[in-house]
Amino acid sequence: MTAHTRKPLILISNDDGITAPGIATLVRVMRRIGEVVVVAPDSPQSGMGHAITIGNPLRLDASTIFEDEGVEAYECSGTPADCVKLAKHHVLKDRQADLVVSGINHGSNSSVNVLYSGTMSAAIEAAIEGLPAIGFSLCDYGHDADFTHAEPWIEHIARQALKNGIPVGTALNVNIPKKSEEALAGIRLCRQARAKWQEKFDLRHDPYKRPYYWLIGSFVNLDQGEDTDEWALANNYISVVACQYDLTALHGLTEMNASWDLTPDHATLAKRHA
Amino acid sequence: MTAHTRKPLILISNDDGITAPGIATLVRVMRRIGEVVVVAPDSPQSGMGHAITIGNPLRLDASTIFEDEGVEAYECSGTPADCVKLAKHHVLKDRQADLVVSGINHGSNSSVNVLYSGTMSAAIEAAIEGLPAIGFSLCDYGHDADFTHAEPWIEHIARQALKNGIPVGTALNVNIPKKSEEALAGIRLCRQARAKWQEKFDLRHDPYKRPYYWLIGSFVNLDQGEDTDEWALANNYISVVACQYDLTALHGLTEMNASWDLTPDHATLAKRHA
Repeated sequence: MTAHTRKPLILISNDDGITAPGIATLVRVMRRIGEVVVVAPDSPQSGMGHAITIGNPLRLDASTIFEDEGVEAYECSGTPADCVKLAKHHVLKDRQADLVVSGINHGSNSSVNVLYSGTMSAAIEAAIEGLPAIGFSLCDYGHDADFTHAEPWIEHIARQALKNGIPVGTALNVNIPKKSEEALAGIRLCRQARAKWQEKFDLRHDPYKRPYYWLIGSFVNLDQGEDTDEWALANNYISVVACQYDLTALHGLTEMNASWDLTPDHATLAKRHA
Repeated sequence: MTAHTRKPLILISNDDGITAPGIATLVRVMRRIGEVVVVAPDSPQSGMGHAITIGNPLRLDASTIFEDEGVEAYECSGTPADCVKLAKHHVLKDRQADLVVSGINHGSNSSVNVLYSGTMSAAIEAAIEGLPAIGFSLCDYGHDADFTHAEPWIEHIARQALKNGIPVGTALNVNIPKKSEEALAGIRLCRQARAKWQEKFDLRHDPYKRPYYWLIGSFVNLDQGEDTDEWALANNYISVVACQYDLTALHGLTEMNASWDLTPDHATLAKRHA
């Protein structure tokens, strides 16, 4: 098979589970571009961050969910990161994915949410494996969210990734504004906004009078920059952040080299054995 | 109470669970420095990455495990990140922790393992909350691991953090070589080594003939740098990496700005609605 006749091989995963509407949209869009294989969790895995399954065995079963579209699909009992590992090393084996896409997540993964995101953990796991990868999220938490306005943009971004590549050591975090009357304003390359969750815990009591807690929080953007993903989304742009899995803060190391005592003497340490 | 009489308030969590030997060591060492509060998972959470619990309620119960040492302790049904959130917003409330320490993890969290690490997710969650935080890990997976050689060094590092602070926007990832006949060589500030897991899946069949998979993998260091955490640990140094939770790869954005088509025209997009 020559290079120009071979369709790109695209691996799809997500964190909302294989039956979520978001992944069905992604399958439909990616089929216009290449050959698609789906390996996705058999149940929702939202908030799983970069979890992997180490203490328990994993199940992996063929699924007929995308049979009508002629798409090979598997459901997995593990996390999104598990799905990508199983896909690469067990399902695809000698077939090399040209692109890994995850999502479309039902809800935003902008700013600091990327750290809690199962959608992005699938993409980052693929990046660690050396595969070009993108996580797509729609800023609409509804199960009946409308993805139609996002489709041509997702296709454009995926084609750009196949044509121009994704920066080495990164995976793209793409967030798309919720559908509104206004058309999407375009694409912005962004940095991750500095933000946090202002947490509260709702204390309740079960029928046996034991307390339990629901996490409730509100998202607070602490960043005034117009180069952030939060700014882009607030202005109806699609935000694209290149996310690196090397967490080293070199400026932090420089700062510590100047202020920390990194060579305690034996007397100091011995005192601490007391 | 004046500043010089108030002992620092130190919050401790981990991912191996409140009964693990590693957290008992950390409690003992931190008690020499300040007042200690423990909020830790009620069961092991290894490999949980930066997971949070959103679909289920959380339990939080007072624990008597460190009662003999006069230490206030709670066990939580959630993940390490949940523990830190609950500690800050529910247990400590108006008390501000001067330092958050997590661990001591039974096993290495060096290099790319930081992404899967529940120990470090507790520290990073604290950093997002604006608290100085350190995750400690011992490169020994045994439940009977010997932590004694690490104690004076952990105390030194914690005291340095209280005295000199931790770089803004980062949490420290501290890995300590396994106890050997040789004394520890010292502390090295490091960058995260470029490495990956070479995964394999062990396929088995259950008594009902259904397949299942165990993840087995071997760690491969792809980095020759002598400024990495892997180099430090291999040479019997304690590795210290300042880890940032802003994942933005600015060099990646620069690269994409030069090569990607970020402003597709309407005709291109319209074609993709077909």
